[in-house]
Amino acid sequence: MKKLINKPENVVREELEGIAYAHPDLVKVHFDPNFVVRSDAPVKGKVGVISGGGSGHEPMHGGFVGIGMLDAACPGAVFTSPTPDQMLEATKAVNGGAGILHIVKNYTGDIMNFEMAADLARGQNIEVESVVIDDDVAVKDSLYTAGRRGVGSTVLAEKLCGAAAEQKRSLKEVADVCRKVKDAGRSMGMALTSCTVPHVGKPTFDLPEDQMEIGIGIHGEPGRTRMPLKSADEIVEMLMEPIISDLPYKSGDQVLLFVNSMGGTPLIELYVTYRKAHEIATKHGLKVVRNLIGPIITSLEMAGVSITLLKLDGDMIKLWDAPVKTAGLRWGI
Amino acid sequence: MKKLINKPENVVREELEGIAYAHPDLVKVHFDPNFVVRSDAPVKGKVGVISGGGSGHEPMHGGFVGIGMLDAACPGAVFTSPTPDQMLEATKAVNGGAGILHIVKNYTGDIMNFEMAADLARGQNIEVESVVIDDDVAVKDSLYTAGRRGVGSTVLAEKLCGAAAEQKRSLKEVADVCRKVKDAGRSMGMALTSCTVPHVGKPTFDLPEDQMEIGIGIHGEPGRTRMPLKSADEIVEMLMEPIISDLPYKSGDQVLLFVNSMGGTPLIELYVTYRKAHEIATKHGLKVVRNLIGPIITSLEMAGVSITLLKLDGDMIKLWDAPVKTAGLRWGI
Repeated sequence: MKKLINKPENVVREELEGIAYAHPDLVKVHFDPNFVVRSDAPVKGKVGVISGGGSGHEPMHGGFVGIGMLDAACPGAVFTSPTPDQMLEATKAVNGGAGILHIVKNYTGDIMNFEMAADLARGQNIEVESVVIDDDVAVKDSLYTAGRRGVGSTVLAEKLCGAAAEQKRSLKEVADVCRKVKDAGRSMGMALTSCTVPHVGKPTFDLPEDQMEIGIGIHGEPGRTRMPLKSADEIVEMLMEPIISDLPYKSGDQVLLFVNSMGGTPLIELYVTYRKAHEIATKHGLKVVRNLIGPIITSLEMAGVSITLLKLDGDMIKLWDAPVKTAGLRWGI
Repeated sequence: MKKLINKPENVVREELEGIAYAHPDLVKVHFDPNFVVRSDAPVKGKVGVISGGGSGHEPMHGGFVGIGMLDAACPGAVFTSPTPDQMLEATKAVNGGAGILHIVKNYTGDIMNFEMAADLARGQNIEVESVVIDDDVAVKDSLYTAGRRGVGSTVLAEKLCGAAAEQKRSLKEVADVCRKVKDAGRSMGMALTSCTVPHVGKPTFDLPEDQMEIGIGIHGEPGRTRMPLKSADEIVEMLMEPIISDLPYKSGDQVLLFVNSMGGTPLIELYVTYRKAHEIATKHGLKVVRNLIGPIITSLEMAGVSITLLKLDGDMIKLWDAPVKTAGLRWGI
């Protein structure tokens, strides 16, 4: 295992210490239980937007805490759900009196623990709504999931809901934005290589040198199929077709096209990928009016990409363009 | 070779096509010869800031073209210097009448071709200054370099000079900012793995599973030493000590600490690295007042990191904080 780490059991703590050193203007990091909140939390009268999940997907979610996006993020151990006490403490820490939205990726552990935290918070008179993101069209059920997995749309929901909360919209309105993203976003990913979870010390799965896996999950969960490595253009077609046909999208729809690195795939390959994805979207009559390209929701050092397509209406475009100041996404401020 | 590409000979062209689709608000991409200019170029009365070099280091340089940073970038083939005609055409395209600064990384091919382009531009009555960045303390001469290699400080110079040019400073003043970065910045990198140049098809060098290389170049040029893999904290000490002792820095100095992924190292490891680098800098009495963390000057999918430390004065801090709008760095706008 070749990683820039010290002891595997300390990776998440040391990462959080690094974040605390690096971004004191943006966030405060709490330890035991671990959570990251924006430095001016709680913001009075503003809905608090929270997400969380296993570590290993950075910059998601801690890198998206700040003005105009998340109020708090709860990192679990690598590829492991955070615990209800983390989520409860984060919920209390960012409670500005206008309620809290939990944005939850559809994994069994995350669902269960966020539900428990929401119940505990309600017991302390904090209003909580939860929206579960399940945008991965690759498989119906998966290793850690009943139903579809939650992937790339989660980050887009965090941006749009964060902007809506910043405008002081009500909890129901912010949750409605999240539900709109849940309904209008679809994703699919693929892997060229596995990744290695630090405390496991060996690759999660074996993928021979001439093979790739289409429809992989962000924890290395099995996808749809393994096959010999194909060209970038052929791979992008295999990802875009299921996404576009699933919703379905209509000619003339405005979309955000998000091409994501799984961690080990460099930017030069992401732009080669983006090129073909853009051409396919355009051929279907979709108007790519916004995009996001980079390592955003990663699987440690896995090589591969995922593509997310989100149908946008006018309000969503305005929310996307609103100022954001986080370690992972920043503009306008 | 596992890459998301089509034909190796088309990688750079298809990447540029992807950039053209993705960022028409920021840049225009010219083909044959290849160069990327900001979409509103030339800006009248503003110094044009240009850099370039081999592809494979994305987002550097094309990802840094836009308001407040580069006016143009010239991408060569992967790990290969761009040609004088690319640089000349880029120089002419962004000539707003106030002169042009060429920011050149110290590699023999880049130096030679930028010099030739500058001479040709001067022959067409365009004033050109060139500053060569040579900040890598690892080795004195290298595979493609006489003297030290140019690495991480280059991106910092692009940001600061871009901001200075945006303020309509004169060519001499913008070049002075670049010379200040050249003098006050030091870098060193290390690799856990090699990368594979697409048209070569096999790793540039072999690095056994239990070995790492300290002082590596961004094209896989040999470093100072190979040794068994050590902990992140030990590795960061091996990078920080030569950097800090080289300048030297003084207790109380304000610095920018830049922790860079070579491409295949994920963000979770960068923050573990940042943590120790920050602690070492602080122990030496340095004040880390700004930072940059991410895959910024990469070597395709190489796993590894580099660290750059730049001593800052008050003017440099203001230039760093000035608005920037590029695909790779963005804030305030």
